[in-house]
Amino acid sequence: MAEDLIAPGEVWLVGAGPGDPDLLTRKAEKLIKAATIVFYDALVGPGVLALVPDHVRQVAVGKRSGRHSKSQEAINILLVEAALDGERVVRLKGGDPSIFGRSAEEIASLARFGIRVRICPGITAASAAAAGAGISLTLRGLSRRVQFVTAHARAGEALALDWQALADPQATLAVYMGRAAVPEIAARLMAEGLAAETPVLVATNVSLPDECLLRTRLDLLSFAVGTMPADAPTLLLIGQAITLETATVQTAQSDARQSAAR
Amino acid sequence: MAEDLIAPGEVWLVGAGPGDPDLLTRKAEKLIKAATIVFYDALVGPGVLALVPDHVRQVAVGKRSGRHSKSQEAINILLVEAALDGERVVRLKGGDPSIFGRSAEEIASLARFGIRVRICPGITAASAAAAGAGISLTLRGLSRRVQFVTAHARAGEALALDWQALADPQATLAVYMGRAAVPEIAARLMAEGLAAETPVLVATNVSLPDECLLRTRLDLLSFAVGTMPADAPTLLLIGQAITLETATVQTAQSDARQSAAR
Repeated sequence: MAEDLIAPGEVWLVGAGPGDPDLLTRKAEKLIKAATIVFYDALVGPGVLALVPDHVRQVAVGKRSGRHSKSQEAINILLVEAALDGERVVRLKGGDPSIFGRSAEEIASLARFGIRVRICPGITAASAAAAGAGISLTLRGLSRRVQFVTAHARAGEALALDWQALADPQATLAVYMGRAAVPEIAARLMAEGLAAETPVLVATNVSLPDECLLRTRLDLLSFAVGTMPADAPTLLLIGQAITLETATVQTAQSDARQSAAR
Repeated sequence: MAEDLIAPGEVWLVGAGPGDPDLLTRKAEKLIKAATIVFYDALVGPGVLALVPDHVRQVAVGKRSGRHSKSQEAINILLVEAALDGERVVRLKGGDPSIFGRSAEEIASLARFGIRVRICPGITAASAAAAGAGISLTLRGLSRRVQFVTAHARAGEALALDWQALADPQATLAVYMGRAAVPEIAARLMAEGLAAETPVLVATNVSLPDECLLRTRLDLLSFAVGTMPADAPTLLLIGQAITLETATVQTAQSDARQSAAR
């Protein structure tokens, strides 16, 4: 029985992926169908919600940059109440629960009531954007490190990021919720020595029918984002891996190296 | 028709996820069923391969640390040949194709022959290990950055990693293929100032029935990995986010801060 996947009073934090319902995992789909109640974010796509069976209660607890419809505390309380009521609870989160999903707060809150929490991972936006653009986030020998940060600061707080670590020409940087902070991000990365011509991919509505992928470079980034939909969640991918030309060069180099070694 | 997903002569690089067939995306499953030939890595689990229909040809092109059964060049050639033969080609890769999957080499090689390549993302091991351990890779205000590196160096080469950027107490570090380099990793991170008591999760066979998750600390890491299965792919997660106690403290702090602000 599908229902056996979730015990009554148990909570699953489930990654809904970037939006395309086909980028949900098979496990997430099974959990949605085994739930009696589903709490979902504003970032969870309508196509994903269409997979929730009619008899399962759906509760929107959307948070979105700038318009928080429910505070994290309020969401924590809703989850605890549903679990204590014996519901089979799915908490559906856009992307992957472990990457900027504020899962730790929900886990800790549920744990204080002795409620069992389990996690089903999801496809994070950076992976889906790279796939959509036909690139890899890593390039052997050239882009050796991938790093994810969020540019969504607490209201009134400056971005407290380690700019030196981020401005590494041998790393690929993914900035979640990067739209508002674009001028600061570009300026700080260049101030720390990242080249003005470093390739950038700006991605909005990743994996959805209105997905928009724009290739630009660091010094033109502020100008380029002005041409993109303003209210959509925006991801930035920054680094040499963004251009496939680099990959071609790299492969040609390694071909030459291998030939020389033979 | 499912077959229409892949045009004849087209290649899809498909993320197979960490091993559990339920952690495959719905899209990956559809692509596998639409293929006429599937090339797969040693890291692709038998449960995933069981989803490949009987009429689809399966070709093992496994690479694994220490025993490369086929070189990357040989794999590139097989993919090109299959596409030029008009096959509907799926190249199944463990984890996510964009993270240490050497996708760029395959894309560049196929592009030289004008072959269309598309990518379906997968769940990467770090996400699945965090989910299995019931933790988040990020903690709001405490673990603000997530970074992925691989410790699998070219034969005879030292690990060329930016240790200073990796040894950040406010970041979570995921080291793929970390087993052999554990003594060097622990020593270099501590030399760069990361605390000896920094929590570490050692994960092998993530998401599979024989998954092994071990919590330890940086200064005990070399000892701890000695107790883990030696030949399994090993992922290290390093940082404050590994302990849920931290999350609890953080939530309590933010509760207090929010109360103070009211």
